[in-house]
Amino acid sequence: MMIEKICIINPNSLDTVTKGIDAALQPLRRPEGPSLECFTLADGPPGIQTQRDADAAIGPLVRKVASLEPTASAFVIACFSDPGLHSLREMTPKPVIGIGEAGMLTALTLGQRIGVIAILAGSIPRHLRYYGAMGIRDRLAAELPVNLSVAELADRQRTLMRMTEVGKTLRDAHGADVLVMGCAGMAALRAQLQQEVRIPVVEPCQAAVAMAIGLVQLDWHRA
Amino acid sequence: MMIEKICIINPNSLDTVTKGIDAALQPLRRPEGPSLECFTLADGPPGIQTQRDADAAIGPLVRKVASLEPTASAFVIACFSDPGLHSLREMTPKPVIGIGEAGMLTALTLGQRIGVIAILAGSIPRHLRYYGAMGIRDRLAAELPVNLSVAELADRQRTLMRMTEVGKTLRDAHGADVLVMGCAGMAALRAQLQQEVRIPVVEPCQAAVAMAIGLVQLDWHRA
Amino acid sequence: MMIEKICIINPNSLDTVTKGIDAALQPLRRPEGPSLECFTLADGPPGIQTQRDADAAIGPLVRKVASLEPTASAFVIACFSDPGLHSLREMTPKPVIGIGEAGMLTALTLGQRIGVIAILAGSIPRHLRYYGAMGIRDRLAAELPVNLSVAELADRQRTLMRMTEVGKTLRDAHGADVLVMGCAGMAALRAQLQQEVRIPVVEPCQAAVAMAIGLVQLDWHRA
Amino acid sequence: MMIEKICIINPNSLDTVTKGIDAALQPLRRPEGPSLECFTLADGPPGIQTQRDADAAIGPLVRKVASLEPTASAFVIACFSDPGLHSLREMTPKPVIGIGEAGMLTALTLGQRIGVIAILAGSIPRHLRYYGAMGIRDRLAAELPVNLSVAELADRQRTLMRMTEVGKTLRDAHGADVLVMGCAGMAALRAQLQQEVRIPVVEPCQAAVAMAIGLVQLDWHRA
Amino acid sequence: MMIEKICIINPNSLDTVTKGIDAALQPLRRPEGPSLECFTLADGPPGIQTQRDADAAIGPLVRKVASLEPTASAFVIACFSDPGLHSLREMTPKPVIGIGEAGMLTALTLGQRIGVIAILAGSIPRHLRYYGAMGIRDRLAAELPVNLSVAELADRQRTLMRMTEVGKTLRDAHGADVLVMGCAGMAALRAQLQQEVRIPVVEPCQAAVAMAIGLVQLDWHRA
Amino acid sequence: MMIEKICIINPNSLDTVTKGIDAALQPLRRPEGPSLECFTLADGPPGIQTQRDADAAIGPLVRKVASLEPTASAFVIACFSDPGLHSLREMTPKPVIGIGEAGMLTALTLGQRIGVIAILAGSIPRHLRYYGAMGIRDRLAAELPVNLSVAELADRQRTLMRMTEVGKTLRDAHGADVLVMGCAGMAALRAQLQQEVRIPVVEPCQAAVAMAIGLVQLDWHRA
Repeated sequence: MMIEKICIINPNSLDTVTKGIDAALQPLRRPEGPSLECFTLADGPPGIQTQRDADAAIGPLVRKVASLEPTASAFVIACFSDPGLHSLREMTPKPVIGIGEAGMLTALTLGQRIGVIAILAGSIPRHLRYYGAMGIRDRLAAELPVNLSVAELADRQRTLMRMTEVGKTLRDAHGADVLVMGCAGMAALRAQLQQEVRIPVVEPCQAAVAMAIGLVQLDWHRA
Repeated sequence: MMIEKICIINPNSLDTVTKGIDAALQPLRRPEGPSLECFTLADGPPGIQTQRDADAAIGPLVRKVASLEPTASAFVIACFSDPGLHSLREMTPKPVIGIGEAGMLTALTLGQRIGVIAILAGSIPRHLRYYGAMGIRDRLAAELPVNLSVAELADRQRTLMRMTEVGKTLRDAHGADVLVMGCAGMAALRAQLQQEVRIPVVEPCQAAVAMAIGLVQLDWHRA
Repeated sequence: MMIEKICIINPNSLDTVTKGIDAALQPLRRPEGPSLECFTLADGPPGIQTQRDADAAIGPLVRKVASLEPTASAFVIACFSDPGLHSLREMTPKPVIGIGEAGMLTALTLGQRIGVIAILAGSIPRHLRYYGAMGIRDRLAAELPVNLSVAELADRQRTLMRMTEVGKTLRDAHGADVLVMGCAGMAALRAQLQQEVRIPVVEPCQAAVAMAIGLVQLDWHRA
Repeated sequence: MMIEKICIINPNSLDTVTKGIDAALQPLRRPEGPSLECFTLADGPPGIQTQRDADAAIGPLVRKVASLEPTASAFVIACFSDPGLHSLREMTPKPVIGIGEAGMLTALTLGQRIGVIAILAGSIPRHLRYYGAMGIRDRLAAELPVNLSVAELADRQRTLMRMTEVGKTLRDAHGADVLVMGCAGMAALRAQLQQEVRIPVVEPCQAAVAMAIGLVQLDWHRA
Repeated sequence: MMIEKICIINPNSLDTVTKGIDAALQPLRRPEGPSLECFTLADGPPGIQTQRDADAAIGPLVRKVASLEPTASAFVIACFSDPGLHSLREMTPKPVIGIGEAGMLTALTLGQRIGVIAILAGSIPRHLRYYGAMGIRDRLAAELPVNLSVAELADRQRTLMRMTEVGKTLRDAHGADVLVMGCAGMAALRAQLQQEVRIPVVEPCQAAVAMAIGLVQLDWHRA
Repeated sequence: MMIEKICIINPNSLDTVTKGIDAALQPLRRPEGPSLECFTLADGPPGIQTQRDADAAIGPLVRKVASLEPTASAFVIACFSDPGLHSLREMTPKPVIGIGEAGMLTALTLGQRIGVIAILAGSIPRHLRYYGAMGIRDRLAAELPVNLSVAELADRQRTLMRMTEVGKTLRDAHGADVLVMGCAGMAALRAQLQQEVRIPVVEPCQAAVAMAIGLVQLDWHRA
C-alpha cells in the first residue's frame, strides 16, 4: 500500500523556518503515514510581514502545489495569513488547510475568547479582515504584537519573554482564555509559553497538519 | 510504550448507534494508536431529540467520563447537541471534543455557507442557540430537518433519499456549499450523500475523532 | 377566584439565598396575586459556580417543576446561568423565565452598553456562551468578576464595596451605561450600588419575576 | 396611599386605536394599581406609516410627556417604531418603554427565531434599522407585511386572515417559532392568531405595559 | 446649462458652525459645479448634543428641505447624528447624505478599525445605536469623547490638543487605524490632527459632500 | 496648475471591458479635472471569474501601479473582487479604491438591504468572504448570479433581461431595496435595470471613481 503524503509548504524562502515547522510535526508522524513533507517556497518572499508579501507568495505557491499535486493527498499552507488558500482550493479537490484558519478553529475548542499573539502590529488589520471573512470575529478577545524584528526573533529566550508578556496582557486585560501563536515556526516555544500563561496555547502549524491528517484518513475531498 | 486511548461516548443508550459510530471510525484507526473505543451510555436517554434528552444525558456522561478518565487521553461526545461538553471540560484538562462543534468547525474549512441536515425540526432552535454560543452563526446558510421517525430512519435507502432532497434544497434554495449531517450514526450514508449533492458533506463523529486524535498526538491539554 | 401562583426556584440548596430572593420580591406582591412562592432546590448543588453545578441542577429542577406544574402558572429559574431553561420550556407551555435572560433583556431597555458584575471569573465564559446563544453579545460592554469567596460574600459591606469598584470600572474603562448583577440573592445591595455608580442597576430575580407576572396576567402560553 | 399611574401614549391621533389599546390592557389592571391610562396624541399624525410620521410624532410626544410627567410613574410609547423613545428617556429618569422594543424582547423569551408581521412593506427597512440599533438582528427570522390599507384593516376578519397567512409563511418558509404583531391596536386578534399559527404571538402594547408595571413596582429609575 | 446645486444644511442655528462647514468645502468646489450652498437651520436647536436636540431638528429640517427641493440636486445633513435622514429620504428621491453615515463609510476605505472622537460622552450611546442600525459596529474600535464645553471648543488650540490626546488613546489603547471626527465644523483641525496621530483622519462634512457630488454627477436617484 | 490624474485599472486584459468602464465615467469628468484615465492590465488574466484569476491579477496590478504612481493622484481597481486592494494600499499613501468596496458602501446610503447581482455562482463565496472582511454582511439581503457565459454577456439585451429577472427575485423574494451590479463594465445597463426593478441600482465603477475624486480633491492620504 502506498503511503499518503501531506505537503506542508512554508510560503517564505527561509529554510530555517521550514526546519522549525518540520521539527514541530514530529509528534504527528506515524510509521504507516501519512508522511508529512515540508517544503520551502524557494521563490517566495523572504518573510511574510505585509499583505504584499502574502500576495506575492500566491503565484509561487500555485506553481508549487501544481507540481506536487499528482503525488500529494493534502496541502497545508504554513503562514498565518493563509496566502492563496482559496486559489489553491480551486486547483485541487484535495484538502488544503491554512494554518491561520486551523489555528483559530482549534482554539475555538479550547477556550471562549481567543487572544492572538502577532509578530508585527502591521499584520493585525490583515488578520482582522481574515477573521471577518471567516465569520468568527466575535470570539476574538484581542490581538497584540510582540513587535520584534527578525534579528530579535532569533533570540529565542527574548522571544519567549515577549510572548509571555503579551500573552499575559491578552489574558488579564482582554480576558483571553486561549492563545494562538499568530505565526509559523515558533512551535518550540509553545509548551513553555503555555506553562507561563497557564491557559492553552495553540501552535497553528501543528493544528493545521492535525486537521489535514484527519481529512486524508477520511478521504474527504471537496468534490 | 502504552497506546493512548480516545473514548467516544454515544450519550444515548442505543447500541446500534454506537456500532454505527464505531464502524465509521475505521479509517482513523492505526496500529500504534491512539485506540478509539466507543461506549454506549447505558443509563442515557434512548435517543436525544429534545433539550430534555440532551440535559438528561449530562449526569450519566459525567459519571462515565469520571470512570474512564484515569486511562483515557481524550473524549468525544457523540451527539450533535454536544450535551455536557463544558461540564466535562471542567472535569479534566484532557481534550473533550463535541461532534456538533467539530462538525461545524470542519465544515468551515470546506465551504463558505454551511447547510445542516437535522433529523427533527424541534432540534433546530437548540442547534441555533449553540451556533450562537459558538459565534459562527454568520456562516450558517440554513438548517432543515428530514423529519423522519426513528422507525423510518432504520430504512437507510429512504433516509438517504430524504437527506439528498434536503441537501439539495439547502444547496439550491439557501446557497449552501458544504453540508453537515446534524446527527450521529449516519456515517455510512456520507459518501453517497456527497455524491448525490456534489458538495462536501461532513460527518461530525469522524470530524470530531480526527480532531481529538490530533490533540492527543500533540499532547495539548487545557491546563 | 383562585389566585395564580408563580414558582420561583432557587436551583441551589442554600435557604439563605432563597430568603434573599423572597425578600426582594416584596415590591412585586399584590393582594390579588399572582402569589410569588420561592423554593429551594433541596437536592440541587450547594452553589452554582461551575458549568457542572449548573448542569447538575437540571435534573432536580425538572422534578421540582413537574411536581409544581399542576398548581403553578409560571416558573422563574433563579440562577444567572439559567440552568435547564429550555428543558423546562419543553415540559410545560406555561411561562418559564430565566433570571439571566430577563436581567439582560431588561437592561437593554435601561442603557446601551451592558456591564455585568459576575461573582467569579470562571463563570464569565459560560455567560458569554449564553449571550451568544441569545444573540445579544453586541450589547455587552464587558463582564468582570468581584472574585469573592462564599465566606467573603456574607460580608455585605465588603461585597458592596467590591461591586461598586467593579461597577465603576465597567462604567469608566468599558463604557457601560447600565449594570446587571450577575447573580441571585444580592437584591438588598441593588439600590445602594446604583446610588454609588450613578447608572441603572438591574437585579435579575426582580426583573424575571416582573416579566413572569406580566405573562401570567396576559395568560400567554407557548402553545 | 397614592396609586401610581402609567401613561400609555398612542402617538397617532386616532381615538379608535387608543381604545383598542386600552381594552387590551384590561388583564393587566389591578385594584391597587398602577393605573393604566391611555392617551391619544391629538396633535400627532393620523397614523404612523412612514419615518416622517414617526419623526413628526416626537414633538407632540415630548410635550405630552412633559405635561404628564409630574403625575406619572412611567410611560409607554404605543407605536411599533418607538418614536422619540430616547428623547423621552432624556427628559425623565422614570421608565419609558417602547412597544417595539418590549415586543421584540419579550419574543426573545418565547422562541428562538422571531417573525414580525408588519402592516406595510414600507415600514420594514425602518424596523430593520431599529433591530440593528437594538443589536438583536440575529434573532429575526424575517419580517413580512400584510399590506392592507387602513380601510381594509377595519375589516377584522380579513385582517386576521391576512395575518394568519403571513404568520404561516413566517413559520413555514422562514422558520419563525414566535411571532410579533408589528403594530399597535390589534390585540383583539392575538389569541385567535396564535390559535391559527400554533406558535406564540406577542402583542407589543401588552408586552410593553407589563414591563412598565414591573419597573414601576420595583421603583427602578434611570438615575 | 444650469449648474446643479447641493444644499448642505447645518441643523443647528449657529452661523459660525455653518461658516466652518462652508470653508471646509472649498477644495470640493469647481467652476462648472455642482455649487455647494450651506444653510443654517435658523429654527433648529442651538446645538445638537442630545437625542432631543437631534429629534427637534427634524421638523425644521423637513421644512427647509421642502423649500429647497425644487432647485436642489442633493442634500447633506451636517450633523454627525444624521437627524431626520430617513424622513428626508422619503420626501425626495434626490440623494440625501448624512455626515455620520458618510464619515463612517469613508473611514471604512481608509483603515480597518475606526476610532471616533466624540465631543460629549452623552452622544456615544446615540452614535452606537446608529452604527448598529447601519450594521457596521464590528468595524468600530472605540468612541471616546473630548468632553469640552462649547466655550472650550472655541479655543481651537486646546481643542486640537484634546482631540490629539483622544486620538492617540484610540490608536494606542484601542487599536484604531483610522479616526473619524464625530462632529461638524471642525474641518480646520483635520490636517493638523492627522499629522499628530499619523493615521488617517476623516472629516465627515467633507466626506459627505464628496459622496453627494458623485451621486449628483451620476444622476443617481432613489426612484 | 497641473491637473490631477486618477488611474482606473481594469485588472483583466480585455480592452472592451476597459472601454465600457471609460464610457461610464463620462458624467464624472470635468474640465479642470481630475482626469480619469482607464488602463487595461495587458498581462492580467483574460477575465476574473475565480479566486485564482483575482490572485493572478495582483502581481501585474502591483507593477502597473508602481509605474503609474509618480504621476497619479489615486487609483481605482475595477474588478468587483477588489484584487490586490490591500497590497496596493501598502505601496502608496494615495487613495486606492476598490469597486467592490465602493459599490457596497455606496449602496448602504441608498437602501437598507443590498441585493447583489453576480455574474457567476462561483464568485459568490468569494464575495461573501469579502463582505465579512468588510464587516457589512448584516446588510446583505442576498447575492444571486445571472449565470451567463462571456459569449452570452455580449448580448446586451439578454443580459439586461437576466439581470432584471435576478434583480426582481432579490427584491421580491429576498427583500432587497437596493441592488449592486457585482461586476465591471456593465454600466450601460444600469439606468434601464433601475427602471425595470424600480429600486436604486449601483454601478460599482462609477461609485468607486466618484469616491476617489472626492478623496483627491480633499487631498486625503493614508499617511
